[in-house]
Amino acid sequence: SHRDFDKFLKHLKNKDKCAIVSGANPSGPLHLGHLGVFLTNVYFQERHGLDVFIPISDDESYLAGKVKTQEESLKNSLTIARQLLAIGFNPKKTFFIIDQLCTPIYNLAVKFSKTVTKSTVKATYGYTEEDNIGLQFYPAVQAAHINYPLTKGYKAVLVPIAADEDSHLRIARDIAGKFGLEKPAAIHSVFMPGLDGMKMSKSKPSASIFLGDNLKVIKTKINKALSGGQKGIEAHRRLGGNPDIDVAYLYLDALFLNRKESAKIYKDYKEGKILSGEMKQMLYDYVVKLLGPVQKKFAKLTNKDVERCLLKF
Amino acid sequence: SHRDFDKFLKHLKNKDKCAIVSGANPSGPLHLGHLGVFLTNVYFQERHGLDVFIPISDDESYLAGKVKTQEESLKNSLTIARQLLAIGFNPKKTFFIIDQLCTPIYNLAVKFSKTVTKSTVKATYGYTEEDNIGLQFYPAVQAAHINYPLTKGYKAVLVPIAADEDSHLRIARDIAGKFGLEKPAAIHSVFMPGLDGMKMSKSKPSASIFLGDNLKVIKTKINKALSGGQKGIEAHRRLGGNPDIDVAYLYLDALFLNRKESAKIYKDYKEGKILSGEMKQMLYDYVVKLLGPVQKKFAKLTNKDVERCLLKF
Repeated sequence: SHRDFDKFLKHLKNKDKCAIVSGANPSGPLHLGHLGVFLTNVYFQERHGLDVFIPISDDESYLAGKVKTQEESLKNSLTIARQLLAIGFNPKKTFFIIDQLCTPIYNLAVKFSKTVTKSTVKATYGYTEEDNIGLQFYPAVQAAHINYPLTKGYKAVLVPIAADEDSHLRIARDIAGKFGLEKPAAIHSVFMPGLDGMKMSKSKPSASIFLGDNLKVIKTKINKALSGGQKGIEAHRRLGGNPDIDVAYLYLDALFLNRKESAKIYKDYKEGKILSGEMKQMLYDYVVKLLGPVQKKFAKLTNKDVERCLLKF
Repeated sequence: SHRDFDKFLKHLKNKDKCAIVSGANPSGPLHLGHLGVFLTNVYFQERHGLDVFIPISDDESYLAGKVKTQEESLKNSLTIARQLLAIGFNPKKTFFIIDQLCTPIYNLAVKFSKTVTKSTVKATYGYTEEDNIGLQFYPAVQAAHINYPLTKGYKAVLVPIAADEDSHLRIARDIAGKFGLEKPAAIHSVFMPGLDGMKMSKSKPSASIFLGDNLKVIKTKINKALSGGQKGIEAHRRLGGNPDIDVAYLYLDALFLNRKESAKIYKDYKEGKILSGEMKQMLYDYVVKLLGPVQKKFAKLTNKDVERCLLKF
């Protein structure tokens, strides 16, 4: 699903100056669940020569209590920026927005905040009277992140966003409208479950494959992942597996396979031709092929490489 | 009246590093009503060699609708800073905080904002659900203004504040307590009415003497000021005037006379020995003596002089 994606494509076709804005949350390091969106962004960037703005919401993480201090938030943000460069973003066309290091963003947030009432934020985020006023203000900062390129001559922006965050984007879109900017377009990214089949959570590190995990850890985690297979090979061959709940299949589908490959594997698994262990091995091989070079590149990147990509006003 | 002023004086006596924090509002240029506080600050600065931090709340003026744009707010702020240098602040010990030019202040505001709930702000400022989220966040910015020196090694700060703004200071004091800083002390400044005897207001420029008004305008304004005198000289000599509502007397008392001088003039006016016209002439003479040199100095000051005094992190 999407909002105004067709309009964005039209701008692309017209060779208008366009950008992608794709946020990251520095509550902890990146895991595979984050990669789908970013790999798509890297692809878009390469294919269309697009600038990509990546706000890493360091103050939101602090205000929402996902990290304890602003310092922890900043440290995580810099690690994430380095990880994103490692997965292939073009450093000449990528701009990280870390609020603590890019404080002029607050001038734009203040400007925007004048047009957003408490009741709008309450309706969108459900904050109560006991929530802190920083969190309450944050939607204006987020709108500044999203609309910033539009205030600097970009004609259109595209925001890949989780479907359950769509309402947040509406505040940014409303603001854009009020200030005479093109409303940001959105595409909704695919939801990826944790390895245990549940919603991913920072408090269950065993349920996520982190970009920095070593191969042995990855192997163990994948082997423990929720499977859609039958108990025993014989039963699996006879009854077939359930790909819709098989996390290894879901990851392969979300990150590595094209539609045709995915359909074939889905069918073969359902008919018992592919075993759960084979599915997991396939995922492991893809993950290693992806993360091996990323980890090598990450080790080579320096603070200076990251600094060069920090947005400064 | 005051809060912890005795504690502040103790720090002064101990030669601890102390500062004054004294805010200005850039909804318009300075007028005589503002001068009482600032002249006291200048005196304190000279007498004790104190650093003075002057936050000029440019974003509050924008968010509260006192000015239309951030640009207007910034322009007014720079004018006020120049006016304050003209009235005698020591440029080597004076630091203006204009949020649009000193955006790292927001990192401190975000830090503080985590400890302030919406309900606290509601109880203090009375904002409704239809007020904007920037205004709602502003108490955290104000707390950052007030407590900033305490985060930079100053042991104590003194905040001269209007009595009706005392509740605002309580938020900053509570925050200081939560972050292990000495709670800022306060002295409450004297209220000065407009020339018409009513509360001063930006929408009634004729009721205020602005620092930039020329002598002719000042003469006219003072002549029209609310008088406590009788109708006709004869009646005045016989019945005496009412100094308690005589704006010229109130201004003389607040800005120019020491206690003894003020008591004598109060008595003489009440007994009809001083005429209303004489009181007004006295005020005019003092104002001209004060503002003449201020206006000359203002004309000589440059943008660079102001820039040198802007707080940068």
